[in-house]
Amino acid sequence: MANDFFTAHKATLDRALEAIATREYWTPFPEMPSPRVYGEEAASQGQAAFEAFRNTNYPLQLDGATKTVGQERSPYGFDLNIRYPFVEANQLIEQSSLALDSWREAGPEAWVGVCLEALSRLNKRSFEIANAVQHTSGQAFMMAFQAGGPHAQDRGLEAVTYAWQEMSRTPALANWVKPQGKHDPIDMQKQFTVVPRGIGLVIGCSTFPTWNSYPGLFASLATGNTVIVKPHPGAILPLAITVSVLREVLSEAGFNPNVVLLAAHEADDQVAQQLSLHPAVKIIDYTGSSATGNYLEQHARQALVYTEKAGVNQIIIDSAPDIKAVARNLAFSFALYSGQMCTAPQNIYVPRTGIQTDAGHLSFDEVCAALGHAVERLCSDPARAVEITGALQNDLTAQRVAEAKALGLEVIVDSQPLAHPVYEQARTATPLLLKTDASNPHIMQEWFGPIIFVVATDSTEHSIELAGSTVIEHGALTLSAYTTNKDTATAIRKMAERSGVSLSLNLTGAVFINQTAAYSDFHGTGANPAANAALSDAAYVANRFRVVQTRWHTEQTL
Amino acid sequence: MANDFFTAHKATLDRALEAIATREYWTPFPEMPSPRVYGEEAASQGQAAFEAFRNTNYPLQLDGATKTVGQERSPYGFDLNIRYPFVEANQLIEQSSLALDSWREAGPEAWVGVCLEALSRLNKRSFEIANAVQHTSGQAFMMAFQAGGPHAQDRGLEAVTYAWQEMSRTPALANWVKPQGKHDPIDMQKQFTVVPRGIGLVIGCSTFPTWNSYPGLFASLATGNTVIVKPHPGAILPLAITVSVLREVLSEAGFNPNVVLLAAHEADDQVAQQLSLHPAVKIIDYTGSSATGNYLEQHARQALVYTEKAGVNQIIIDSAPDIKAVARNLAFSFALYSGQMCTAPQNIYVPRTGIQTDAGHLSFDEVCAALGHAVERLCSDPARAVEITGALQNDLTAQRVAEAKALGLEVIVDSQPLAHPVYEQARTATPLLLKTDASNPHIMQEWFGPIIFVVATDSTEHSIELAGSTVIEHGALTLSAYTTNKDTATAIRKMAERSGVSLSLNLTGAVFINQTAAYSDFHGTGANPAANAALSDAAYVANRFRVVQTRWHTEQTL
Repeated sequence: MANDFFTAHKATLDRALEAIATREYWTPFPEMPSPRVYGEEAASQGQAAFEAFRNTNYPLQLDGATKTVGQERSPYGFDLNIRYPFVEANQLIEQSSLALDSWREAGPEAWVGVCLEALSRLNKRSFEIANAVQHTSGQAFMMAFQAGGPHAQDRGLEAVTYAWQEMSRTPALANWVKPQGKHDPIDMQKQFTVVPRGIGLVIGCSTFPTWNSYPGLFASLATGNTVIVKPHPGAILPLAITVSVLREVLSEAGFNPNVVLLAAHEADDQVAQQLSLHPAVKIIDYTGSSATGNYLEQHARQALVYTEKAGVNQIIIDSAPDIKAVARNLAFSFALYSGQMCTAPQNIYVPRTGIQTDAGHLSFDEVCAALGHAVERLCSDPARAVEITGALQNDLTAQRVAEAKALGLEVIVDSQPLAHPVYEQARTATPLLLKTDASNPHIMQEWFGPIIFVVATDSTEHSIELAGSTVIEHGALTLSAYTTNKDTATAIRKMAERSGVSLSLNLTGAVFINQTAAYSDFHGTGANPAANAALSDAAYVANRFRVVQTRWHTEQTL
Repeated sequence: MANDFFTAHKATLDRALEAIATREYWTPFPEMPSPRVYGEEAASQGQAAFEAFRNTNYPLQLDGATKTVGQERSPYGFDLNIRYPFVEANQLIEQSSLALDSWREAGPEAWVGVCLEALSRLNKRSFEIANAVQHTSGQAFMMAFQAGGPHAQDRGLEAVTYAWQEMSRTPALANWVKPQGKHDPIDMQKQFTVVPRGIGLVIGCSTFPTWNSYPGLFASLATGNTVIVKPHPGAILPLAITVSVLREVLSEAGFNPNVVLLAAHEADDQVAQQLSLHPAVKIIDYTGSSATGNYLEQHARQALVYTEKAGVNQIIIDSAPDIKAVARNLAFSFALYSGQMCTAPQNIYVPRTGIQTDAGHLSFDEVCAALGHAVERLCSDPARAVEITGALQNDLTAQRVAEAKALGLEVIVDSQPLAHPVYEQARTATPLLLKTDASNPHIMQEWFGPIIFVVATDSTEHSIELAGSTVIEHGALTLSAYTTNKDTATAIRKMAERSGVSLSLNLTGAVFINQTAAYSDFHGTGANPAANAALSDAAYVANRFRVVQTRWHTEQTL
């Protein structure tokens, strides 16, 4: 059955293998929430499915559940009031270990087959997941659909594809024949078996519950490990649905559904730590704060730990062929999900002497004004703007905006709430643009949320140097630059390669620094403190399994 | 020039890529020290080159050398009296960082080209290296030639081959064209650059100074890192020659020779720790004791740490179709380099009720006697035996043999010195075979040296269970089993896969549990405490470099 799943999706896998090799555009999961693609009823059914979850016990039966937990509240202003089964950490480990016992024997085709079938079913439930993501993360609907649905599925499939590629590299059986001069050759059979590490733990975040969890989840599962999914207490539903789909596929394929378990828990308990430090947990995938990520890297020594943490994303403006297009592109990046993307830009470096543009030389203040104007324009229609900004996931982000205001810097554009046409209680905020100088130590930390510093530097050389040292010291997932000068572009690229951050050059159209495309763009480099791995590459998957060989003389009949 | 090297060796690289995919027999480095292969004068020239090093300052100019060090003594009974330049750890780091600055820009073809040329030149100096390995490690000449020369070169080439495969997986440039319905597609260029981690540190051991160092050395170098080679103070010369060859190739190719540095040092100083914990050291490859290996894994948190440590290698004897052939094979494995291989067997499990063989049922004591007899026979001619056993690398191993004797166990065969026909002072020892029971806690640790326990178990099931739990708790690089029963063979294989150790079944001919073949056998699994990586696979190389991308709209002329 699991192998039937493999066969059914083999063509997609082969196409994905081609995509990660050429890194050309491709996806099997359409990103537009179109009735023609997903069906006429898909949108309403997805919303209905989401609504049906509210004010109920989530329909997931876990063995040994001792109580229910769940206090999710939509950033759009209402409680979800969904209760999830709670199972003690030691119980989860025990069940996962038991499930590993048979899962490990199933082999790569079965592991990958289950993953591919689950991704296909998750794709069909993209509207339901979009609602769940919207009302936990606060993303606007379109982003919740795309990033929470097809794009997350893409990143999941990408990880499965890399896993398959690495696992299928070693032949199942080899015949090794070594010449011995005049004597008979030594003739041996060698069998190679892919074996999993053990239990994988996936620790989700509240802002991208599916997108940031799927790579680790599917990478570990596709390589024969069992997985315990620990959602952020503020964003359980999207991963609960994901776990349900996986368990359904596992059961149909004849496996113990406990191969994938949900560790829903209260915000203030010890479950995350108990799971992370357990000797049976051999792989951890984590997205979240640097404090917790660094803690895991230091203390969860029994496991391979893959982390995505905080960083300071930067933009270097050296010169601009079309300053209005630059400002429009950046304003959108500032506003998109209110800066709550790990890829969102924060520090914008502009020489204090100003820059050359198509509109002539612009002073530093004029550049600030151009950026500010573009933000104001983008946010001028609240009903439209809120479909870009979405809502703030939690109060801490709202407080951070207030803290940034209290820094006493000159305000280019103030942050303000946006009236949501449907959800009056939505926690919204437009971008706050502040003017500051490169010597300000406050800019050398992540200000998660819609907080942007336009930073006066001595020169573009200074901007480049500052950006490079910031990546090395504080980490970054993205870097962007605008220049009309070829040598400057090269200098920036060299700095990016040395500091280990991916670079976007002169984005003025419909591509934004915040966004990466699966199968083509690597998310993170694994080469600076913001993330110790990239999504996805061979290094991300190759150590999640091992190969154990058995050899014997061919003449033996055993 | 470096690219010329790449072109010159491209055919070998392509053939090696094929070998690691099929895992069939292949090598470009002939293992027989034959005049027809290596030249009529090669043997005498190699020995003369070694003799010329003695009682001199080793001809290596290192910047900032403050003194000379070196107290190597041949296990065959004489001092080498070779002095090597000593450079302070911080100086080495500084020089390595400086060399990295240009080396990192050279790119994969140059990195791999330099490695391939160096391996080719090392192969030509195999006799010289053989003498250096023999008179530092104590290996007999044939092993010193094979394991120190061609087999080490094979493992180096294997690592380079995996590195090339992983680096060339991502295209240098991709054209990403995303359809936009009725609008023009988004058309982007994406450039992908392989960047190194930084400085790699290779920590050598005294028993296999080249074989155990080449994989990490060449894996790090081939992926653009610079490398500091820190030999064991007791076995500097083989790695000094290696470093010299690499520096010569680097210089010819126009690179700073400090891309590869030698950190020769005194046995009791802090150099290893200073280098290991330095923030600029991003990769460490270590072979040696579990204590130091575990320390590095715990404390060198700034680096990727690849370790090979202690383990307890085991043999399960369930039944034997040809007991004499079994005993002959095992006796050779016991005697080979006096058990100073990380792959040497230590615990031999035999049911206390005896086993079925071609000679009928043999009691436990009869099996012990058969093994003992084979050992005695193998060692009966000292001049021949010493070419198998070689010499004990250091006094601690000799002391360990005495400690094992003092355990008070029944002696099957006692260990004794072998008179060496040339080197009267050689520190030699034949295998010590002791009889014990599975309940003896002493067998649950590594007894590095020619110390073998024949262990009475309740049954083969008990042997299997004991072997599996020992691998999981104490680690192992090898496991071997003898059985005529298909179901038993399967049960042993399942245990091996679950505990994570490679298995050899029914070795009775010219293949020994101690030996693995590059391009085909993985050395270590990375799945038990004896080693956290395997030589070599994708996981061993894929994280030594990262990929940094730059993207821009195709229409831009920049």
